[in-house]
Order: sequence, then structure tokens, then C-alpha cells
Amino acid sequence: MQELVLGIDVGGTNTKFGLVNREGEIIAEGTCKTGGFPVFKNYLTHLMSNVDEVRANTIEHALIGVGIGAPNGNYYRGTIEHASNLEWKGIVPFVEPLKSYFSNMPIILTNDANAAAIGEMTFGDAKGMKDFIVFTLGTGLGSGIVANGEVIYGSDGFAGEIGHTLVNVFGRTCGCGRKGCLETYVSATGIKRTVYKLLADYMCDSELRGVSFNDLSGKMITDAALRGDFIAVQAFEYTGRILGMKLADTVAHFNPEAIFLFGGLVNAGNLLMNPAKFHMEDNMLHCCKGKVKLLVSGLQNKNAAVMGASSLAWREIDKAR
Amino acid sequence: MQELVLGIDVGGTNTKFGLVNREGEIIAEGTCKTGGFPVFKNYLTHLMSNVDEVRANTIEHALIGVGIGAPNGNYYRGTIEHASNLEWKGIVPFVEPLKSYFSNMPIILTNDANAAAIGEMTFGDAKGMKDFIVFTLGTGLGSGIVANGEVIYGSDGFAGEIGHTLVNVFGRTCGCGRKGCLETYVSATGIKRTVYKLLADYMCDSELRGVSFNDLSGKMITDAALRGDFIAVQAFEYTGRILGMKLADTVAHFNPEAIFLFGGLVNAGNLLMNPAKFHMEDNMLHCCKGKVKLLVSGLQNKNAAVMGASSLAWREIDKAR
Repeated sequence: MQELVLGIDVGGTNTKFGLVNREGEIIAEGTCKTGGFPVFKNYLTHLMSNVDEVRANTIEHALIGVGIGAPNGNYYRGTIEHASNLEWKGIVPFVEPLKSYFSNMPIILTNDANAAAIGEMTFGDAKGMKDFIVFTLGTGLGSGIVANGEVIYGSDGFAGEIGHTLVNVFGRTCGCGRKGCLETYVSATGIKRTVYKLLADYMCDSELRGVSFNDLSGKMITDAALRGDFIAVQAFEYTGRILGMKLADTVAHFNPEAIFLFGGLVNAGNLLMNPAKFHMEDNMLHCCKGKVKLLVSGLQNKNAAVMGASSLAWREIDKAR
Repeated sequence: MQELVLGIDVGGTNTKFGLVNREGEIIAEGTCKTGGFPVFKNYLTHLMSNVDEVRANTIEHALIGVGIGAPNGNYYRGTIEHASNLEWKGIVPFVEPLKSYFSNMPIILTNDANAAAIGEMTFGDAKGMKDFIVFTLGTGLGSGIVANGEVIYGSDGFAGEIGHTLVNVFGRTCGCGRKGCLETYVSATGIKRTVYKLLADYMCDSELRGVSFNDLSGKMITDAALRGDFIAVQAFEYTGRILGMKLADTVAHFNPEAIFLFGGLVNAGNLLMNPAKFHMEDNMLHCCKGKVKLLVSGLQNKNAAVMGASSLAWREIDKAR
């Protein structure tokens, strides 16, 4: 009987899940709402009935593990903690109540970026690497760090918050309450802010001049840049420059073999990668110059969230075997 | 028969060594010159004859390992690489030629800051900690990082170069060829530069106004500050502020349980620790506020260099047992 694990990706709007084999193939999948359940227990019941339905329609299989990627997911405690874009406030135990649904198998939870890093190591282009970092460029900027072949969670589960390192002490206000954090520049929201700054700085034509801030999306900026829109291209240049400078600092901390970028903004290709590479090398300490690969994630444009979540469980199972 | 390991600390001027037991006690020690041997092989012969002499005068013992802390020491290759304050240029194999002197025992080399971190874990105040960082404030700023209970060397042995992360892109020139690196502000040399900046900014009296840049030392600044000299006190405030801000970034990367500070500047006590703690907390991401201990190294004012070097070997021996 085929062995599968359940990968669950908890998003702000929807929860995606899938049954994934050891090769990273999603054998069956489903989606349900995350929002609309003020009581967490009711969300879990809803999610589990959706999972049961999908499992019932899947070829006979043995479920041997569950992996969950969630915003502000805490690996040590199996909890979601103070997630600003979910409706459950405070600290929400996730793994513990799940044990009544799935007994005798590993249930692993961590945040999205750590799940992406383990996904990259298990199913993507970091196979065999012992030291690498994945940056996820979404609404914010997440980072999953692997050193000596292990994810760095830190003493309290909060390592990998590179999105909240400082770019400019007088810079943009951040959702975390401080100013000038990296994610206020390098993320889908960050590049929107940069477009608006550039629309103020320059008076040239731009297809983005007719779009309100609320309507503007990372995809619109990417598409405009790929069509050669000056403001959009400059926005990627600006974003790539700040990213590259900070990547040099990240290399000074970890000396990784590779850094992977993941997320919608990465679809702009060289418009983002070229300035990021240039400014990373330009700011790099001599001993590391030319040695650190900056790559697009091997899971880019795949169902990376579900694959990443499932990889949490596969890795735990692999270790135990 | 008592088991001892040989700890060797290669400094720019002198090499210190000691025979150290598992409790970190230095049973016997010696010093010899590092400089004056343009050919590395001759230095090694000189060092080994000094070691032999000390061993001959030490109670009967079994030597079971050798640990070496050296500037720009590469753990993976057992080499010293491009060390600017040593007279051997390029890449110098250290562990390989040492094998003809010491057979059938581990010989481990790494840089001073990593040795300090392993020393803190083995003999100091990081016993039992899995995630912590040691900052060594000497001529430059070194950092040794432990995550998941292991030192992070990175893919090429160059992790822990936090001294070369960016404070200010338009800032002070650094020995590494770039501008605004952390160690140009936070180190014995950095605080000298800060004193000179402050002597220019202010016109108040200071006992440091009669001292040339070349004559000024970290110890003189520390002593003046402890006597209440305004310029010296402000120099520690300035140094502590920049250190604290960057420590918050370091926490965002690693979420350590504790950060240890080591080196002469740390003898200024609260004049350095208070602003460093204040600005670390002030810049800290919400989830880590109040959780990361900032401490003086448990090896401060001990023979930390030799203890740290010996701990490299003890740790390897402990692992194998």
C-alpha cells in the first residue's frame, strides 16, 4: 500500500492540503476556508471533514505523517502564535488537538518559510546541501535557514526573521511596530510602496500611474516591468539593490552554499535577480565573493506550500528510519 | 595517568599554549614568538621545541588531542587563510604538518571566535545551551555562533563574520576594503576612532585630548571612562548603541538563548553593557523582547584563548567517546 503524508498549508484566506508521496508528487489535494471560524475547534472540524472527503476518493493508502506550514507557526510548541492575518488571537495549539484525528504518526508544524526550506531540501534544488537559506517573498519576507544540515529554529522557535532586520532606522513603518525592516522594501507590499515612492520621485509616464495603492498588486508590477515600464523596472532595481545588500550581510552570518528566492516577485526573473546578484557581490566580504549561488527556488511555480508542509513530515519519517 | 590536551592560541605577536585537563584547568603553559619566522615550517619547529620543553617539566600525562585557535583559521581545511596580521601570506596548512608531531589524536583548528564559542560551551557559562553567540571585541570583532548545539562554520568555513555586516554604507573604511562594517565601530580600534570623532565633535576637557591616535589604547579609554571622563563615557555609549542595534538584527537571524561579550572593552562593565542592552531591546522584534540574555563571557579575564583552543580538542574527544 502506498505511503502518503498529509501536507497542510494554512493561509490567511484559504487552507490548502494534499496527500504527498516520498517523491513529492501530490496524489490528491483540496482547499477549504481558513476564515469564518472564530472558534479554532470549528475550523479544525471543517478542515478534517474536507481532508476525510479527499482521502475517501483517493486510492488506498497508508497515512504515515502530517506536516503543517502556518504563519507564525512554532515548531517547538506546535502552536500558531500571534498571527496578525488569522482571526485566532494569541497562542493557538494546532498539533495537540490534531492528535485525536491522527494517532501514532509524527505531526510537525512550523512557519511557512521553514517549511519552504525543508521542501527545498527534500523535493527541490537544495538536495544534498548542508548550508543554505530560502527567502520567501510574499506579503512579507520570510526566511528559512539550514546550517549543518538542520533548520535553525533558535532557542524559542523565532529564528529566521531576516525580514525584520534593519535596512534604515529612519525608514518605512513596519507591521511589527518598528521602522525600516527589510520586508517593508523587499516583498510584494514593499515593492508596491517603492512604486508609489518612484511615482512621486519621477514624472514620467507609467501604466501604474492610473492604479490606486489598494488595487496595485505585485503581479501588476511584475507584468508592467516585463513590458518595460520604466517605473516598474526601477522598482525592481531598487528592490534588488536592497535585497542584494542585505544578502551580503546574511552571507557574513552563515556563509551558505546557496540562497534561494521564492514567490511571485521572482517571476520578474532577471529584473530582480540581476540587481540582487550585483549588489550582493558588490557588498560581499572578500572571502565569499563569487562563491554563494543566488538561485530561483526549485519549487517556484509548483504547489510549494503543500509540498513544503508535507516535507516536514517526510523528513521526520526519514530520520526515524 | 592524567589525560591532557594541548591548546594553542596563535596571536599576531605571540603564540600562547597550555596543557589543559577536562575541567578546563591549565596544568602547564608557555609562550613563544609568532613573528620573525618568514618560513612557516621554522615557526612550527620553534613552537614545538617550546611545547616539548613545557611538557618535559609537566607531571606525567597522556596527550590525547590538540586544539588551535588562529586568526582566519579554517576548520574544514586546517589552514590559516590570508591572515592580515600574520607574516605568512596566502593559505598556510597548519594541521597537516602538525600530524608528524602528534599522531593518532584529533588536531582541530578554527578561528579565535569559534574557539571562544566552544570554550564558552565547554568551560564557561554556555554549558547546556544549544543556541548562543559569542562576540569577541579585540582589535576587530569576531563572532562564534552555535545553533542546534553545533558551531556554524558555513559551507566554506567563513560563517560568523558578523564584524563585517553593514552599519552604515557611507561609514568608516574597513580593513576588508569596504565601508561601514560593524567592527569599524565596535572593537578596540573602533572605539579609538569614536573617541577621535567625539574629540572633534565636542570641545570639552578630556584626559584623552593629550593622547595621539597611535598611543591611544582600548584600556586607556576604559580607564578614563571608569574615572568619568565625558568623552570616554560617550564613546562607550556610542559603541554600545551601535552594538545593541546590530545585536537585535543578530537575534532576528538566530533567536539565541544568550549572547556573550568577551574582550578588553567588556571590562568597562555597565558603561558598555547598559547601552548595548537598552538598544538591543529597543530594536528587538516583539516576539524576542526580554528573552535574550546579554552576558559577559564566563571566560572573561581568564586564559580564555588557551582554554578555548583546548576545548576544540576536548569537544571532539567527548563526541567520539
